[in-house]
Amino acid sequence: MRYCNQCGAEVIRKVPEGDNRLRHVCISCEEIHYQNPKIVAGCISEHEGKVLLCKRAIEPRYGYWTLPAGFMELEETSHEAALRETLEEANARVTILELYAVFNLPYIGQVYMMYRSQLKDLDFSAGEESLEVKLFAEGEVPWDEIAFTTIKYTLEFFFQDQRNKQFRLHTGDIINQGDGNYGFRPGP
Amino acid sequence: MRYCNQCGAEVIRKVPEGDNRLRHVCISCEEIHYQNPKIVAGCISEHEGKVLLCKRAIEPRYGYWTLPAGFMELEETSHEAALRETLEEANARVTILELYAVFNLPYIGQVYMMYRSQLKDLDFSAGEESLEVKLFAEGEVPWDEIAFTTIKYTLEFFFQDQRNKQFRLHTGDIINQGDGNYGFRPGP
Repeated sequence: MRYCNQCGAEVIRKVPEGDNRLRHVCISCEEIHYQNPKIVAGCISEHEGKVLLCKRAIEPRYGYWTLPAGFMELEETSHEAALRETLEEANARVTILELYAVFNLPYIGQVYMMYRSQLKDLDFSAGEESLEVKLFAEGEVPWDEIAFTTIKYTLEFFFQDQRNKQFRLHTGDIINQGDGNYGFRPGP
Repeated sequence: MRYCNQCGAEVIRKVPEGDNRLRHVCISCEEIHYQNPKIVAGCISEHEGKVLLCKRAIEPRYGYWTLPAGFMELEETSHEAALRETLEEANARVTILELYAVFNLPYIGQVYMMYRSQLKDLDFSAGEESLEVKLFAEGEVPWDEIAFTTIKYTLEFFFQDQRNKQFRLHTGDIINQGDGNYGFRPGP
């Protein structure tokens, strides 16, 4: 951020009075430009024990498999965002059952909110951002071709809970361990 | 938003190619300036059945009672944000037990994430943004002086669950019904 989006003057990084963090502050109108984490909302959608995955047609992670999810927009709720992303990426209509995973990704300023849901019908297909959309049983999941760590953990929790016949909310943080490795720290 | 924070040129509102929403787009460098909901994180902290409330020393709702909560920052997790706000506003040290409420406020682009927690000690006091900090049993809560609808519902759910001796995650949307009235719609 180099310029004030209110008056067009330059911004500098400084700690505003009464604050304790570096912010982008306008040198002219003194507007403080806060930056905050974004919510990524999506669905883990089930049909007869199988889960709907999308093969990404966009970067990052082109060609890798993911759950339909994306940035929550203004003027919508988190569950509306999850339904919208599932429709956009997989042309799939689902019934949301419950909030299933809330993961913090502090190293990139994101919070994932994944909803457990059920397919209403089998009339799904690849949306513009997907190459392919397919149902996978646990043993069929291409574990080495999963796009993101958040998705890997959501899928692992889902199949574990399915085996135990008991689904519950999973919370935690994805931790950047460096060298391209990411771990999971269970949260409250 | 009137100017591009990358290059300082003017922004216009238009639907970018491949998108379906109005965005702020720079007329010079074509940067798209997305705006997304913010997370407000806080704690509902208990001690011997009583709940810790803060009397606001700032606008909006100066002089009204609230739970300690505030905007989640970059580079922290939602539970770290909840602990930080509780320390800043109530000088209170708490142990977080669980994610207790996730409420969408689509009319102002916010998602509330409230954590149920327990006070570690009784050495709390008013932080800079509070006039007073106090423990309230259900019958003592100043219901007509609660600052925000989200806080009212969080407190109501908490005392209801406490009576039933069974706490659970509450999800839903706060709906702006106009004329200063707000309702609650249970969510998945």
